[in-house]
Amino acid sequence: MDEPVANPPADPSAYPHRTQLQLRWKDNDVYGHVNNAEYYSFFDTVINEVLIERGGLDIIEGEVIGLCAESHCLYLGPLDYPGTVDAYMRVGHLGSSSVRYELALFDPDGQCSAVGWFVHVFVARATRRPAEITGPMRELLESLRVLA
Amino acid sequence: MDEPVANPPADPSAYPHRTQLQLRWKDNDVYGHVNNAEYYSFFDTVINEVLIERGGLDIIEGEVIGLCAESHCLYLGPLDYPGTVDAYMRVGHLGSSSVRYELALFDPDGQCSAVGWFVHVFVARATRRPAEITGPMRELLESLRVLA
Amino acid sequence: MDEPVANPPADPSAYPHRTQLQLRWKDNDVYGHVNNAEYYSFFDTVINEVLIERGGLDIIEGEVIGLCAESHCLYLGPLDYPGTVDAYMRVGHLGSSSVRYELALFDPDGQCSAVGWFVHVFVARATRRPAEITGPMRELLESLRVLA
Amino acid sequence: MDEPVANPPADPSAYPHRTQLQLRWKDNDVYGHVNNAEYYSFFDTVINEVLIERGGLDIIEGEVIGLCAESHCLYLGPLDYPGTVDAYMRVGHLGSSSVRYELALFDPDGQCSAVGWFVHVFVARATRRPAEITGPMRELLESLRVLA
Repeated sequence: MDEPVANPPADPSAYPHRTQLQLRWKDNDVYGHVNNAEYYSFFDTVINEVLIERGGLDIIEGEVIGLCAESHCLYLGPLDYPGTVDAYMRVGHLGSSSVRYELALFDPDGQCSAVGWFVHVFVARATRRPAEITGPMRELLESLRVLA
Repeated sequence: MDEPVANPPADPSAYPHRTQLQLRWKDNDVYGHVNNAEYYSFFDTVINEVLIERGGLDIIEGEVIGLCAESHCLYLGPLDYPGTVDAYMRVGHLGSSSVRYELALFDPDGQCSAVGWFVHVFVARATRRPAEITGPMRELLESLRVLA
Repeated sequence: MDEPVANPPADPSAYPHRTQLQLRWKDNDVYGHVNNAEYYSFFDTVINEVLIERGGLDIIEGEVIGLCAESHCLYLGPLDYPGTVDAYMRVGHLGSSSVRYELALFDPDGQCSAVGWFVHVFVARATRRPAEITGPMRELLESLRVLA
Repeated sequence: MDEPVANPPADPSAYPHRTQLQLRWKDNDVYGHVNNAEYYSFFDTVINEVLIERGGLDIIEGEVIGLCAESHCLYLGPLDYPGTVDAYMRVGHLGSSSVRYELALFDPDGQCSAVGWFVHVFVARATRRPAEITGPMRELLESLRVLA
């Protein structure tokens, strides 16, 4: 983290992408709410789904894959199985071979449960060396970018 | 297992309850498909959701809870994130304090991915001694029962 | 399940392989004990570790991999984070391309928490067609086999 | 995050607490290495084990529990099942009712895989209102504190 990254806003209107996640029995931990580590699993799920369906990411055969380089989450309220989560996502920073996604999660009552961010570095699958983001993937990420 | 339990049918019409599950990034394992252990997490999720929403199960405060006593799964085909699972459930056996659920999972093309079963023993939360299934919970389970 | 499979014994001396597992925070579910689905994750972990370290399984590059075809678990007592699990394993049946492992888990007091079994079918990674078990892998599995 | 928090050092000697974690089959994701979200599960596991064993935390019955308020991880290298992780932990900041742990994970070759931090707010279990950290818990956290 060369320069500090601000937490993204707890405001659905700030995000161009929205999806809904379902909670599972095992998400709840011994304290009765969704465990903090699962929030990162939600981030992974939301991000990769968009990359696969709209950016051409092929997680099985593709020559370029996205690896997580840094992640962060600020927890603002509980989530509970059974139920759903409204997940919002945008691109906060887009570099040559890396991208920082910004995400916000809301409970079914519209309360913000968490905001966070997640950095992907795109690399060649074989060598794990950084690979430039090009073509449909760059177009997708540009379309999700929010300009300050 | 006092007497062998047959695998449930790979036929959606055999089940009175249906729901849809979403897959997550982390469900896929190193071989590229949903890991076998996750199927049991799906069973848990499907079963408890019905018990909570329609049978009055209170997983945080309730005096009676359902503990898994035995489970089984026959794997018939892969499941893959990103995607969904059509999950079907019925009650195969209903005793005084225990119930055996039967489940079947289908991929988005309608291929059966797995059939399995899962036994809950209802117990007093405080003592973990078996507790008779009564009231709305028994009515729910009776309504999901399939008579041979 | 063409013929019923008996539950394996809750007796450590019946198993040629032993290892110890560590529990994690997230293993405990809302009822305060290790969730039932995690037991299958333990089975997967114990089995594949032996196959990799002693049978030559290469989960990243190998041409032959083992897929779970069927699994079963009988739950006999709770497990709790923080703590460890003593895991025991043997081969109950060894066919041309499939193997049924039998496992037992014990808590730190020596109480049996679960017994179960898990069937691997070995397949060609590329085609997912059954592949004969040969060489060091067959030798390993033979060495873990228990003759009735 | 009122003020930016620096990433902790990738140096084992900077941490007063050390433990070793085991990896599991399911930790590896489709790219063949431990999934990023699992690292937070490792943090949870390392932190709570110390709190339970040395600080008197009672996760089942205790009146005061620690909830995750913010977490962060910088990924520096892969981890792989089967194998172990050397985990290091210290207290970076200790407030009246909150604590920021700093952690570092190393692979079996001594390469640093990740550094991160994790904030617990201690709350009354019943009300989820902040609770002052006192007694053996404060003594423990003080003993793990590193003064700049």
